[in-house]
Amino acid sequence: MSITANDPKRKSWLPVDKESDFPIQNIPFGVFLTRDDVITVGTRIGDYAIDLGALHQLGYFKGIELTDDIFLQDTLNDFISDGKKTWRLVRNRIAEIFDEKNTALKDNKAHHDRVIFTMDEIEMQLPVQVGDYTDFYSSKEHATNVGAMFRDPENALLPNWLHIPVGYHGRSSSIIPSGINVRRPNGQTLPAGADKPIFGPSKLIDFELEMAFITTDANDLGEPIPIDEAEDYIFGLVLFNDWSARDIQKWEYVPLGPFLAKNFASTISPWIVTLDALHPFKVESPQQEIEPLPYLRSKGKKSYDINLEAYITPENGSPNRVTQSNFKYMYWNMSQQLAHHTINGCPVKSGDMMGSGTISGPTPDSYGSMLELSWRGEKPIKLNDGSERKFINDNDTVTLKGYCKNESVRIGFGDCSTKILPALEL
Amino acid sequence: MSITANDPKRKSWLPVDKESDFPIQNIPFGVFLTRDDVITVGTRIGDYAIDLGALHQLGYFKGIELTDDIFLQDTLNDFISDGKKTWRLVRNRIAEIFDEKNTALKDNKAHHDRVIFTMDEIEMQLPVQVGDYTDFYSSKEHATNVGAMFRDPENALLPNWLHIPVGYHGRSSSIIPSGINVRRPNGQTLPAGADKPIFGPSKLIDFELEMAFITTDANDLGEPIPIDEAEDYIFGLVLFNDWSARDIQKWEYVPLGPFLAKNFASTISPWIVTLDALHPFKVESPQQEIEPLPYLRSKGKKSYDINLEAYITPENGSPNRVTQSNFKYMYWNMSQQLAHHTINGCPVKSGDMMGSGTISGPTPDSYGSMLELSWRGEKPIKLNDGSERKFINDNDTVTLKGYCKNESVRIGFGDCSTKILPALEL
Repeated sequence: MSITANDPKRKSWLPVDKESDFPIQNIPFGVFLTRDDVITVGTRIGDYAIDLGALHQLGYFKGIELTDDIFLQDTLNDFISDGKKTWRLVRNRIAEIFDEKNTALKDNKAHHDRVIFTMDEIEMQLPVQVGDYTDFYSSKEHATNVGAMFRDPENALLPNWLHIPVGYHGRSSSIIPSGINVRRPNGQTLPAGADKPIFGPSKLIDFELEMAFITTDANDLGEPIPIDEAEDYIFGLVLFNDWSARDIQKWEYVPLGPFLAKNFASTISPWIVTLDALHPFKVESPQQEIEPLPYLRSKGKKSYDINLEAYITPENGSPNRVTQSNFKYMYWNMSQQLAHHTINGCPVKSGDMMGSGTISGPTPDSYGSMLELSWRGEKPIKLNDGSERKFINDNDTVTLKGYCKNESVRIGFGDCSTKILPALEL
Repeated sequence: MSITANDPKRKSWLPVDKESDFPIQNIPFGVFLTRDDVITVGTRIGDYAIDLGALHQLGYFKGIELTDDIFLQDTLNDFISDGKKTWRLVRNRIAEIFDEKNTALKDNKAHHDRVIFTMDEIEMQLPVQVGDYTDFYSSKEHATNVGAMFRDPENALLPNWLHIPVGYHGRSSSIIPSGINVRRPNGQTLPAGADKPIFGPSKLIDFELEMAFITTDANDLGEPIPIDEAEDYIFGLVLFNDWSARDIQKWEYVPLGPFLAKNFASTISPWIVTLDALHPFKVESPQQEIEPLPYLRSKGKKSYDINLEAYITPENGSPNRVTQSNFKYMYWNMSQQLAHHTINGCPVKSGDMMGSGTISGPTPDSYGSMLELSWRGEKPIKLNDGSERKFINDNDTVTLKGYCKNESVRIGFGDCSTKILPALEL
């Protein structure tokens, strides 16, 4: 079935700004609270949120096999469980409904009231109930930078790194959508030279510029996903800020990995951009230095050319772009990550989320965290208000952005934005 | 409100064997499939499973504030969300209904058919949908044994261990109830002396003798749980076998912790024994060698005297008890674990599961894993059929058991049992 929704020539009867992340070729999926306090599954075109629950009740999805309440839910999990064929049919249909040549909804003003909202009338929610969240560590530049800083610049990569898409389990309960404020966490840290830890607010709060993919029900316990099939089980992607408290991390993470340094919050952009929408932006992954074991050999274009940016906005200040990176820099692609994750039979379900790990590019202005951008604080970043940042200050807002662009279309992710509040006094 | 369900003098009109794990003083909670293929929440007395959904429909919980469908569910999550007061009221009521002096249900044979099943008529399910699963590493003996084997016997404990109840995130999707077979996982391992990994079935499959506690909705993002309140948010405990592939673990776990070595399967006993039922078995935790930071200082008896055992049963063979340990050996108790987990504001929800980590006792016959019992394979364990085990063989069944006992009552957990099948040929 072809992805007719991707037709670059199509225009919508809804107005869409040229620089919008959400042209009619995007059609992402999300969940929002409407002005009537109803939770629904929806999509977005330009600056309009579309209530898919209402569209379905009004009969616009006739002919597509969908349960009556598939969009009248507070998560996308059930829709994602329906599988790739259904996602594609629905996305193609939405493109038809909003095509400028289609007058069915366009001319039915009574239906507009039920279906179409401006973005300021709605409130975006977490799009899925995340069953399990895994974070990978798949940017070679990031792993090399961290290894050089904390271990040995000559042997920055650990022995397993070029053989394994290294990953670890994260916390689902603290994944939040863009726009929710987060308190600076308290915790244990070991001051330099001390032999006992102290307690208090983390002093080294950092963002991590990542993306995350969301899966459908993929495999039963004991059954691996072959690498060539992996993309069939990926619904789409979001921007992902894996908030990190570097001082807490340093004291706690040996031998079992990061824990409280990460699980106080992770922010995602609320619209899931489908793999179908990203299809025109497929690119080759970087050449791998060591041929991986057969179960990790992916064929063809399995990476995506997605421009990534991070901004810091101080309280009452203006945004400062502090880095520009790209999803395509990742050494290990999503197919390799999913094949690795399941090679032991670990089950992957609808709504599971898998983070890329910090995506650093090859140059110092493309690094994906303050740890790397300020090189452990040795090279503070100057902001446009004259202040400097080694890490993130109280009341700073960090915003991630991401978009793909070619000569005919721009597909974006919207904002992934979080303000850091002062720590609770305990 | 007093826990009248714990009255040690009470007898049930249902027959209960003297050595049963499930006297009328236990009243655990679980989920099962009935002979009519209905999923329901239930409890167990002796060798009888009780359908709480049917009991509620028949009016036996009159006067307790419960939604009509609270037990007609495929998980306990909603009931656990109702909170400690409701759990206690329901458990007290169940004790009354089955008290030998109460004839209401006892003499209503029509109701028996709807409410009471023998254990062979039903099929136990996973009792909760686990949102997040965390595993701690809280047995000093276990951490010391592992440190001595793989690092330095003179400095076996890492510097943070006596200050932090070290923990990490695990995988929820591969948590299974007792009785489900598990395939030996395939994966990458690094043979001794090699500089490249190989692929194939793990050669070093191990059990880990643990317990896990299940929480209710405890805190919002950003709000810590004070240590003195922690037990209010703990619903109950299960036996927990944290299956581990030692060779995969060794190659993958630096620097982000265990991943595929653990997430192929973790087995729990299907009946959740409430903290209320365990109340008579509260004991002091071991004296802590270093006074922890104030947020980790627990007062009074916060540990539980629970005898633990692990058995290996070869194909067509008989069970061999390979270790005897106790939950009370844990250096860090559950209150400390939960206070630590949330000190940074990480939210804990209904159905979350937190493992203790391998619970090893002070003597070599009380160690909680084959790694320790056979000391990395140097001291194989003799089984009663003459064979030896360094780790777990294909077609071996590993069974964990646990029980509390005093002069008047025995409260047990039933079996936590899993058979290891040969690896998939890939």
